[in-house]
Amino acid sequence: MSEPTTKILLAHGSGGQLSHELVERLFLKHFDNPILARLDDAAVLQAGKWASLQVGDLPTCRLADFRLAFTTDSYVVSPIFFPGGDVGKLAVCGTINDLATSGAVPLYLSAGFIIEEGLELADLEQVVVSMATTAQAAGVQIVTGDTKVVDRGKADRLFINTAGIGVVPIGMELGGDQVRPGDAVILSGTIGDHGMTIMSQREGLRFDSPLVSDCAPLHGLVAAMLDALSPPPQSWGGAGGGGRAIHCLRDPTRGGLATTLNEVASKSGVGIEIEERIIPVRDAVRATCELLGFDPLYVANEGKLVAFVAPIAADVVLAAMRAHEYGQEAAIIGRVTAEHAGRVVLHTTLGTRRIVGMLVGEQLPRIC
Amino acid sequence: MSEPTTKILLAHGSGGQLSHELVERLFLKHFDNPILARLDDAAVLQAGKWASLQVGDLPTCRLADFRLAFTTDSYVVSPIFFPGGDVGKLAVCGTINDLATSGAVPLYLSAGFIIEEGLELADLEQVVVSMATTAQAAGVQIVTGDTKVVDRGKADRLFINTAGIGVVPIGMELGGDQVRPGDAVILSGTIGDHGMTIMSQREGLRFDSPLVSDCAPLHGLVAAMLDALSPPPQSWGGAGGGGRAIHCLRDPTRGGLATTLNEVASKSGVGIEIEERIIPVRDAVRATCELLGFDPLYVANEGKLVAFVAPIAADVVLAAMRAHEYGQEAAIIGRVTAEHAGRVVLHTTLGTRRIVGMLVGEQLPRIC
Repeated sequence: MSEPTTKILLAHGSGGQLSHELVERLFLKHFDNPILARLDDAAVLQAGKWASLQVGDLPTCRLADFRLAFTTDSYVVSPIFFPGGDVGKLAVCGTINDLATSGAVPLYLSAGFIIEEGLELADLEQVVVSMATTAQAAGVQIVTGDTKVVDRGKADRLFINTAGIGVVPIGMELGGDQVRPGDAVILSGTIGDHGMTIMSQREGLRFDSPLVSDCAPLHGLVAAMLDALSPPPQSWGGAGGGGRAIHCLRDPTRGGLATTLNEVASKSGVGIEIEERIIPVRDAVRATCELLGFDPLYVANEGKLVAFVAPIAADVVLAAMRAHEYGQEAAIIGRVTAEHAGRVVLHTTLGTRRIVGMLVGEQLPRIC
Repeated sequence: MSEPTTKILLAHGSGGQLSHELVERLFLKHFDNPILARLDDAAVLQAGKWASLQVGDLPTCRLADFRLAFTTDSYVVSPIFFPGGDVGKLAVCGTINDLATSGAVPLYLSAGFIIEEGLELADLEQVVVSMATTAQAAGVQIVTGDTKVVDRGKADRLFINTAGIGVVPIGMELGGDQVRPGDAVILSGTIGDHGMTIMSQREGLRFDSPLVSDCAPLHGLVAAMLDALSPPPQSWGGAGGGGRAIHCLRDPTRGGLATTLNEVASKSGVGIEIEERIIPVRDAVRATCELLGFDPLYVANEGKLVAFVAPIAADVVLAAMRAHEYGQEAAIIGRVTAEHAGRVVLHTTLGTRRIVGMLVGEQLPRIC
């Protein structure tokens, strides 16, 4: 537990330990309901409740087995333009990714803009074009929105909130609590690209091999992974998680891969062991991390996912990922264990083992 | 048309003319799709598209006639606490009201917090408790959320985005384009309470009759109005708007009643005539408006709606509204006409007639 504080600190927005404490002590406590309490990246809404609705004389909608995924994120990244993207592309991709990793097909987005007075309209238009292009390429529609303008000095150029709705196919049961001992831990590619790109922009660093954010929509990659398992072999029936081979998908954003793995280890009550030498990190990212004193395991990604997959299906899923644009460097980086439940253990390149905890404090504010 | 500007002005967030230009020239242009283009307060999503979804080997969901409403708003009100509410209550009520006035039953909300470093945790908790209490009383659940913290001086204490999902009953066809000549214009109560409460807090004004925001969730009022029309008389079949008697509901927030009426007149291609002497305004609101030079017709409301109702049903709807907690001062304030299409005409207390335009510029920044 952290030292008690009576004020909001930057670390409350880090995605790490203080963020988790804030969510549990404040939001879960007061917004008390079982859907929120799952704390997955998107809420999955059951149709059951709706069957009993009756308004005036209008008949209720006829619903069969039907689930929606619903998610939201605000984007406050600084600077708003960076190599590989901008706050708008990030806002569209981030919400698509929260839907996709919940197993939903992303369909509709909302867009809420909080704009600082004095922002150049040309900058806003560039962001909006970026959002439109990203949404169109991803096959989602931005169907509702809102604009607020605050006086100069009361915001920082542009904040964007996107909420998203997707449809969860019948039988899809992904979740942070679905992971089982023996599962393969598959990472879709290199880590740290987004965070170190933003950081180097702020610090004015330049490298021979320029850093580029990995910001990308991952629902196509998820679809390719699911398609590869169709039709599923009979033997998966006993693999747990509703008989499906993919048990959990997560996009390791704020707090990085280490924090995401800790969340899953905790929710599923399992241990996770990962191999440092297999985790892909670009040279430029590694160099920047060393220069600035960061551990790539804790640096935010915006176009990567980690999959927890039944061992029998791991090679099929890995091959499907490697064949996809956004999974070419995918690798099985570790295994889920029954031992050391709730903890993540790293086998280092030096041959030692160490426990990797959740992010503590805030190392990279306003990374997304 | 306003003077061209290359920078975002406060008036771009006013809800008035510059806001409309920004939406049309930027957001509609680039996010081009027919759902957004309707520019109602909530997007109504058809199920048709979803029927063709296929992901992996999973069966698609079985959908009958089914529509969702989806809406978003960010709340940047200053101060965050005010008589009658706070930014949290406002965020829950505002999104409920956008769903309710689209004819939907509000079900689920998301909550995205952008917090300035240094905010007192006790203040955040007070806002969260207010949101929880309001949501619980309204029967909606906050099921997903996000927290970002920005460095001191880069936001102003607390901004909240809420997005909302509701179910639209079969046959419900409300919309800004559904209004017909002859429709009664029914206002649910007094205008200007919210805006003048915020303004007087900022100015440090005090009155014998203290100002209180009207911030309230209106879905119960809408349900009461619909219930009153059940079962509908046969004769409504020819009243237009899908045979239903209530053609359009709007909550006149930013830009006030005048701007809302202008939006509807424009979208339905009708004229609207309203009687100044019938529009209820509290004495304290009128006094504050006179003192500060505001016109209550342009001041934001957060617990009022205006209904456009087929004439045969107007008295029934009015009676139902007056019997409801949030409609006790409801009044038929005017009529829809075929003449002066697209314009709103005010019959003043002086016996004159004048055209009431959309809000130009920004009179009350950060009112919601």
